[in-house]
Amino acid sequence: MVDPVSNTSIAFLDKPCTLNKRQQTRHAILNAAMRLVAQVGLEGLSIGGLADEAGMSKSGVFAHFGSREELQIAVVAHYHQNFQDEVFWPALAEPRGLPRLERMVRLWMQRIASTADSGIFISGAVDFDDRPGPVRDALKQSVRTWMGAVQRAVSQSQREGHLRTDIEPQQMVFEIHGLILVLHYDKRFLQSPNAHAYAEAALQRLLEAYAIRPPHSLQPSH
Amino acid sequence: MVDPVSNTSIAFLDKPCTLNKRQQTRHAILNAAMRLVAQVGLEGLSIGGLADEAGMSKSGVFAHFGSREELQIAVVAHYHQNFQDEVFWPALAEPRGLPRLERMVRLWMQRIASTADSGIFISGAVDFDDRPGPVRDALKQSVRTWMGAVQRAVSQSQREGHLRTDIEPQQMVFEIHGLILVLHYDKRFLQSPNAHAYAEAALQRLLEAYAIRPPHSLQPSH
Repeated sequence: MVDPVSNTSIAFLDKPCTLNKRQQTRHAILNAAMRLVAQVGLEGLSIGGLADEAGMSKSGVFAHFGSREELQIAVVAHYHQNFQDEVFWPALAEPRGLPRLERMVRLWMQRIASTADSGIFISGAVDFDDRPGPVRDALKQSVRTWMGAVQRAVSQSQREGHLRTDIEPQQMVFEIHGLILVLHYDKRFLQSPNAHAYAEAALQRLLEAYAIRPPHSLQPSH
Repeated sequence: MVDPVSNTSIAFLDKPCTLNKRQQTRHAILNAAMRLVAQVGLEGLSIGGLADEAGMSKSGVFAHFGSREELQIAVVAHYHQNFQDEVFWPALAEPRGLPRLERMVRLWMQRIASTADSGIFISGAVDFDDRPGPVRDALKQSVRTWMGAVQRAVSQSQREGHLRTDIEPQQMVFEIHGLILVLHYDKRFLQSPNAHAYAEAALQRLLEAYAIRPPHSLQPSH
């Protein structure tokens, strides 16, 4: 049995093989939207800008998304599905417990540090923290769904006897998320060449600190 | 002797008591700009929007800042100075080593979680990571100057015998910065009521892990 990224009203598209012509066009528009969002952010997305990017007329885009807000929400759902496909499902192939959690976090790091990622979980949080409304709600729900999946992986690792049970799973998720955010910051903004190495070392230390049997390296060397 | 936040070409204003009339007006415009930036971000700042916020004419603002870019750079310098006054200088009042580092990080956390903070070290990083130019350069320089100050506080803590010397100071700065970023994210975007408690617990664990003598609480409890 697997843990679905569930409890969300964000609709997921069917698999590509079942897409009809209209759905294929919608899918192509959303892919163009993801490219655009990587440059201008979710808040900078407009029907006109997207029409240019997708090589379509504005009315062509409007036929699929009746408003800018509807488009932004669809982009969140599309990002969510891609993230799920690249990070969540592959991690579920690992054995339950620490191996699955580690794979989940490493895939998350890879994804967030990639220039192909539009990063709306991070840039969208900055764009929308002062903008209440349906777009922010959709984004928050998507982020919370993902955080919930990581939290379940931590809880499972505790039940499997891999991690200490005196730590609140949310505490560990908080710290892991910190590493993701600083990796993104240092790599994307400061363009630090060492960001990955620091993130990996920090993750190792974090996992060792919370593991049932901390290895020798955790002890003070003097 | 103190560690100045130095090596920066960002000009700092003189202390208020030495401001002439023109400088006072400039200062008032910059304070209005900070309020505006807290809402629209550094990238959303415009001369027209600022004139409205400050209750001035556009030409009045132009008399002080010849272009939008010049204004954005002045805002970065203004933020830098405020940050320095609230976080850096008070921390220097603490004894060199771990007390100073702890105070520095806690003041940083307080500042970043405050809704009064425009947060341009974080929102600006997202806005400008794909926008090369003088504004991004100024922001990067300001962030690097601050990271350099934190790094020196870590190095001093090592020299004072408070922290392990087998850890690269930059590694520790990376991890502290992660806690700042996730505190900001959870508090501002997810509006998590526990963000401060998680950040404080994580900071404690981090300091204990890197301290010369880790306390008993670090040992596994089973």
